[in-house]
Amino acid sequence: MTRRRARTDAKGQASERSYRRRLTNPFEPLRVLSDDEVAYIHTSAVRYLADEGIRVLFDEARDIYSGAGASVDDDLIVRLDPDTVLAAIDTAPSLLELHAPNPERNVVVGGNHVALVPVGGPPFISDLVGGRRAGTLADQQDFLRLTQTYDVLAATAPSVEPGDVPLAVRHLESGLSTLMLTDKLPFVYARGRQRVRDNIDLIKIRHGIVDDAEFASVSRCWANINTNTPRQLDVPMSMAIIDFARMGQVCIMTPFTLAGAMAPVTLAGALVLQHIEVLAAITLAQLVRPGAPVMYGAFTSNVDMRSGSPAFGTPEAMKGALASGQLARHVGVPWRSSGSSTSNTVDAQAGYETMANTYAALLGGASWILHAAGWQEGGLTASLEKFVVDVEMCQIIADLLQPIVVDDVELALDAITEVGPGGHFFGATHTLERYETAFYEPLVFERTNYEQWAEHGMRRTDERAAATWQSALDSYVPPPIDDTVAEAMRAFVDRRTAEGGAPPD
Amino acid sequence: MTRRRARTDAKGQASERSYRRRLTNPFEPLRVLSDDEVAYIHTSAVRYLADEGIRVLFDEARDIYSGAGASVDDDLIVRLDPDTVLAAIDTAPSLLELHAPNPERNVVVGGNHVALVPVGGPPFISDLVGGRRAGTLADQQDFLRLTQTYDVLAATAPSVEPGDVPLAVRHLESGLSTLMLTDKLPFVYARGRQRVRDNIDLIKIRHGIVDDAEFASVSRCWANINTNTPRQLDVPMSMAIIDFARMGQVCIMTPFTLAGAMAPVTLAGALVLQHIEVLAAITLAQLVRPGAPVMYGAFTSNVDMRSGSPAFGTPEAMKGALASGQLARHVGVPWRSSGSSTSNTVDAQAGYETMANTYAALLGGASWILHAAGWQEGGLTASLEKFVVDVEMCQIIADLLQPIVVDDVELALDAITEVGPGGHFFGATHTLERYETAFYEPLVFERTNYEQWAEHGMRRTDERAAATWQSALDSYVPPPIDDTVAEAMRAFVDRRTAEGGAPPD
Repeated sequence: MTRRRARTDAKGQASERSYRRRLTNPFEPLRVLSDDEVAYIHTSAVRYLADEGIRVLFDEARDIYSGAGASVDDDLIVRLDPDTVLAAIDTAPSLLELHAPNPERNVVVGGNHVALVPVGGPPFISDLVGGRRAGTLADQQDFLRLTQTYDVLAATAPSVEPGDVPLAVRHLESGLSTLMLTDKLPFVYARGRQRVRDNIDLIKIRHGIVDDAEFASVSRCWANINTNTPRQLDVPMSMAIIDFARMGQVCIMTPFTLAGAMAPVTLAGALVLQHIEVLAAITLAQLVRPGAPVMYGAFTSNVDMRSGSPAFGTPEAMKGALASGQLARHVGVPWRSSGSSTSNTVDAQAGYETMANTYAALLGGASWILHAAGWQEGGLTASLEKFVVDVEMCQIIADLLQPIVVDDVELALDAITEVGPGGHFFGATHTLERYETAFYEPLVFERTNYEQWAEHGMRRTDERAAATWQSALDSYVPPPIDDTVAEAMRAFVDRRTAEGGAPPD
Repeated sequence: MTRRRARTDAKGQASERSYRRRLTNPFEPLRVLSDDEVAYIHTSAVRYLADEGIRVLFDEARDIYSGAGASVDDDLIVRLDPDTVLAAIDTAPSLLELHAPNPERNVVVGGNHVALVPVGGPPFISDLVGGRRAGTLADQQDFLRLTQTYDVLAATAPSVEPGDVPLAVRHLESGLSTLMLTDKLPFVYARGRQRVRDNIDLIKIRHGIVDDAEFASVSRCWANINTNTPRQLDVPMSMAIIDFARMGQVCIMTPFTLAGAMAPVTLAGALVLQHIEVLAAITLAQLVRPGAPVMYGAFTSNVDMRSGSPAFGTPEAMKGALASGQLARHVGVPWRSSGSSTSNTVDAQAGYETMANTYAALLGGASWILHAAGWQEGGLTASLEKFVVDVEMCQIIADLLQPIVVDDVELALDAITEVGPGGHFFGATHTLERYETAFYEPLVFERTNYEQWAEHGMRRTDERAAATWQSALDSYVPPPIDDTVAEAMRAFVDRRTAEGGAPPD
């Protein structure tokens, strides 16, 4: 599989770079807060949940909270006892192993492991061939094919919203496409009980599992929920927290704390609000099932105070990410962060913002970096060119995480002596033995000089990337899948579609 | 001065962001090597200098080395006793204060201070108005005006080579332009004894200093030398090391260790070679004048093994930078690193590569980040658009380095309660009191949504940047300078020009 893909890849990506499949981060996480500041934000959030609480719109969720001793008032505000929150934190696991259809693509989350995961959520797609337009299932499938193609991407993500598929069956078609076109960890839309159930059933078929309890013994998919910042959990979101916890599947709790809009204009205020909401969500999951797998989602950024628009890839977002990593480690759960950018196209701004924010996530010690490939326009568009360029960034990150080997062979003092003062190493034995694999080989970044570049038409990175994704799609190889499994999944989707799918709750 | 520039700036850069003028880095430096590995590379280099040595082409330099007990053979190879090298390291200062013509622009180098310094060296200039062409003095003057304009740039740099000025007087015109158009720390070309002397004399006039000893009491300019990697110091370079040390001016010792070309193909090999050459250069400076101000220059990158071209902005360069920082700290001198990119234009690749490499420098703990604005084409071109976009990056870095304030006012729990569940903070008092200065305000990055962006002509970052530098040049305000000083500097240049300048040695 790997060998075949390696051979057919547009740029001959080296199959020997197998470390791309499971990245670990050797760097000590960057700290932007002191330990005291982290503790102060944490205790302030815990106290706030006791004093002022959070509004919970789903009655079942309120019942679970109150069953654990929380008070609920007429405004649906749930106030949580600090002991309840602290106990929940204690049972939330710090390290997860998520099982993909292909066991070689299992994902470890937490510790010093890093998962780079592509874009999820935008309604629009953009590429230089078809322009900017509303996303379709066919577009989502293209993103899935690319996700399968590049080893450095650890899991699938929703990429673009398949807006051409009716809502009642969208989760079915999307789930089936994910499981047919990739063998990586599938995502599940957290959009209501029946839809989640349908997707879980599909994944069970893919794994050949019949029993719910067996399925629930390990995470085989992932979902993300966004709280209704500030201080509110709506029905589908709290439902998803409950359902994913019951089924032992990992749920990422992500407040949408946009400083100056849904969160205070100060970074500390946005962070404490984020922490309040994450703690409430984690507590719900742990009350449902102690030990339920969760991640601390962080998406703190800011609005642009000129336009009121959300801004991503900002210095505030970078500092917010570093602080969020510290808060997540204080709680002891894996931290989900993001790459992000506000740019409307694949230009220099996109590069600077995406790289800076992805590095903030990486060097802040993130376990799960969502939107690491393809995110554009502050999340409104999934771009195919951006996807490829971001894969380049992810591959560069993978190489950055590999150690420098320091031993006498690598120090090469004999070669230095052999070459002599003022010489060069092009012909040295030490060079000839290693040059083919010594350095990172770019996917789309250009290393030619100006004259060669001009001769080849002065193509910008996005133009080269357009050729790369087309070529990657042309040479895409689907993962092996048993015919009977494929047929059973298709039959399940057909049956559920005939039954009307799962209309909005 | 600051107020006036703030008012006239194209984008109204906030004059209150005065922290941009003196950046300190709160982050613990990233480490890519263990302490043992650092020590092993260091001791290997020290031993290598004793066993195999380095070739020194300048007789005066060889005499200085041999005067300190070094052996010199017929091939001009100087072998250094380990004690000599270790003693030199001991006398090299770890913290420097460099005096600019404007005392408010003095630069502290070392410790947790960071100086962001623009591009130096390219023969070509590129911009969207005039295209790509050979650089002239007028072009260099434009870069100097932009360097003066943006507070975040700590010192001047040679920017583009003024190829239209004859070599014998180029240093004079360039030096005069630097001292007339900026009040920041001037650079000096390290291109021969008389030229350095001329530039020092000009700087003495600018500071109103007559006495050489008084001038030499503190660094008032900076220079960079590149060794002739591998293992060679040529005449002008070793001459510059000697002259700058004698005059107490800071000299950056930068080997050009391009792995696979002038250095071993392995990163450890390139690093040990770099360390060998830096140690030899620092030793020469310290033998001339114990305590002479120096920096550990690092420029380790790799060639592209497909084309043989130098590649910059690579993962190898990033790891090399982090390791170089560790080696420089081991030696105990400030570390100079770089932003860099191979891209031939201001596109996404330029953004990703520049940001990634500048962050490697920053987070590796660099004291002096050269080429932090305007570097393009692996250093062959200085781009005006890239300069502006990189200034944006530098300003974002400046904001990233500011602490998150954590106190009860910033936590804003009262505002969170006031707004209530599901509300928004746009109208909250807490927001209204702070929103004008709460967030970083971009210079050229766009925060508008797609529709607004499309309405404004879908301008890419480089196109917006072209408008920004033109506007910045239009509103440039020269620094105040005493008429008699200006006349004296002009008279000095006229006299030295009439004398024939300083032809190549």
